[in-house]
Amino acid sequence: MPQIQQLAQYEGSTITLQGWVANKRSSGKVAFLVLRDGSGYAQCVAELQTVGEDAFEQLKRLTLESAVALTGKVVKDQKQAGGYELQVTSLHVYHIAEEYPLGKKEHGVDFLMNKRHLWLRSSRPWAIMRIRNQVQFSIHNFFQQRGFVQMDAPILTGNACEGTTTLFETEFYKKDNTAYLSQSGQLYGEAMAMAMGKIYTFGPTFRAERSLTPRHLSEFWMIEPEMAFCDLDMDMDLIEEFVRTLVQDVWNNCRTELETLERATTLFENIHKPFPRITYDHAVRLIRGEEDLDGRNAIALLENDLATAQQQLDEKQTDVAKCEALVSGGTLKKGEINYYQSKIDKLKAEIKNWKTTCAISHNG
Amino acid sequence: MPQIQQLAQYEGSTITLQGWVANKRSSGKVAFLVLRDGSGYAQCVAELQTVGEDAFEQLKRLTLESAVALTGKVVKDQKQAGGYELQVTSLHVYHIAEEYPLGKKEHGVDFLMNKRHLWLRSSRPWAIMRIRNQVQFSIHNFFQQRGFVQMDAPILTGNACEGTTTLFETEFYKKDNTAYLSQSGQLYGEAMAMAMGKIYTFGPTFRAERSLTPRHLSEFWMIEPEMAFCDLDMDMDLIEEFVRTLVQDVWNNCRTELETLERATTLFENIHKPFPRITYDHAVRLIRGEEDLDGRNAIALLENDLATAQQQLDEKQTDVAKCEALVSGGTLKKGEINYYQSKIDKLKAEIKNWKTTCAISHNG
Repeated sequence: MPQIQQLAQYEGSTITLQGWVANKRSSGKVAFLVLRDGSGYAQCVAELQTVGEDAFEQLKRLTLESAVALTGKVVKDQKQAGGYELQVTSLHVYHIAEEYPLGKKEHGVDFLMNKRHLWLRSSRPWAIMRIRNQVQFSIHNFFQQRGFVQMDAPILTGNACEGTTTLFETEFYKKDNTAYLSQSGQLYGEAMAMAMGKIYTFGPTFRAERSLTPRHLSEFWMIEPEMAFCDLDMDMDLIEEFVRTLVQDVWNNCRTELETLERATTLFENIHKPFPRITYDHAVRLIRGEEDLDGRNAIALLENDLATAQQQLDEKQTDVAKCEALVSGGTLKKGEINYYQSKIDKLKAEIKNWKTTCAISHNG
Repeated sequence: MPQIQQLAQYEGSTITLQGWVANKRSSGKVAFLVLRDGSGYAQCVAELQTVGEDAFEQLKRLTLESAVALTGKVVKDQKQAGGYELQVTSLHVYHIAEEYPLGKKEHGVDFLMNKRHLWLRSSRPWAIMRIRNQVQFSIHNFFQQRGFVQMDAPILTGNACEGTTTLFETEFYKKDNTAYLSQSGQLYGEAMAMAMGKIYTFGPTFRAERSLTPRHLSEFWMIEPEMAFCDLDMDMDLIEEFVRTLVQDVWNNCRTELETLERATTLFENIHKPFPRITYDHAVRLIRGEEDLDGRNAIALLENDLATAQQQLDEKQTDVAKCEALVSGGTLKKGEINYYQSKIDKLKAEIKNWKTTCAISHNG
């Protein structure tokens, strides 16, 4: 079956696309439908005159996320996201979806987390997951082309690589026979490299760290290469090539996804330049502000950042004081009090959040 | 750095190989050394006259698994395993290994399991792991070429896919907040396919089954594809293509490894034939022996197998009785009694093992 991603190959042909209704608007004589099939989004246009009254009625009844097959001619149209549209001649409805809970408006994170199986269908998670897939496949290609052997270290393990306080424990068949979830395949990887020359492990890893930041993952996929007969320069060469290859692959293969995410792409364009390499001593001098880098001084930059942050904090606290004075002034109506109270709560939450972040940056 | 696997590309050139000594023999004037570098095995020949006395002395002191760099000319030699040998001109010794515990003779499984980090260096585990790597990479290639998106279902999960008795449990941060190790990513995969069209998960899976067979794994890697808009025939087409592609890739890329394992390769040669497809009803008729397949009857085959097995069991039991009569007869010397007693123990162990296996086949 043709997929939306491949529409260019089918220009001028009549094909059938299967997917879900991502958007729809219709007038009396023409219906515009955005179809998504997982590989991309395509505008599909159905005219009453072409599809006939019965089919047009069916089209009008389609709800968001209904499952359909649309048959039609692929026509080039620069105005459309993918560059092509489908001029529908007939349709088959698999299922009319019940009212879809995710709409056009912004939802809170809690709401989206509770509907995560549906959230995945939205364009942003869709684009992120497709880029993640590209990165994973590029990692495999990169290492396989260089003669590395993928080997998987066990997840259930009796040892701790990164400190025992952050291990998930489980009982291994017998009481008191404790196994841990692996924090790293390194111990295994080193033995494997002596057998295979070059290996990589690539799988889930576990860290039971209690963390104050929202960026901590208890479970994440980690790539760990191990090479025999390799020095630091060879290692840096490989790392540089690795990062460059991955970025290029994403740039070449995920243009639509990057556009969906509205990411700045300067990084992608600069990836061909050699990465700067500095010695440890040089890095220390830069961080201490004893030496400038590209005309900028680390200490001066930090002091500037801190001054800006302090100023923002002061402004927020002044706002809180102003609002509190108004609320306690006794001259406001009930609606106004509610308005200012929610503004105070919001500002206080921002201040608290900001202080926690700074404390973490400072300690971590 | 050139690897042994690529020797053909370097025919006639002088190159340096880095690796470990897998075997060695030397006379007064010439040393033969099998080097392994993880990508393969290569015979390296060093003549006293060429390398000089100091280097030749160093070569003679090399122990099994010592780490070296050998420089020399790559010469075609059909008699060698890889088809090429290295005519050594100089060497660099990184490390002389202590006495290596794994020798040429057969070791018991217990011994090898305790030295598993070293066992990996032997040719059999080496070949198996390289074929496993090829299979994994082929799986990624197969799905990526067909527009599938790799997505990873979480390992830590709150639900059980395959029954709650076989779950590994862990505490997730809080007491009584139980998480389980995933038995399957299916629940996630189904939601993902509705977002991406076609997805696959490929990662470790856990089953805490108590098992009588030595074939049970508590932890294994599983591939789980999910497709939207797919019927049973499309599914069977994909499975057939999948198996065929994997077998072909191993056959094309792992010839040396298959030779090392001395595997029969008939399967590989027959992989182009279409796979037979039968209905459920037809399968039931075949199993019941109501219909023959390729001139063979399932029930007759089973009865024949059972008769053979019974005959073997009877023979073993007769042997046990004979040996026991000899031992209790009082005419044997101490050495002879020991000999027959160990024979009895071995036979009884075989009988017990055999009965367990049959019980499992019968129940499972």
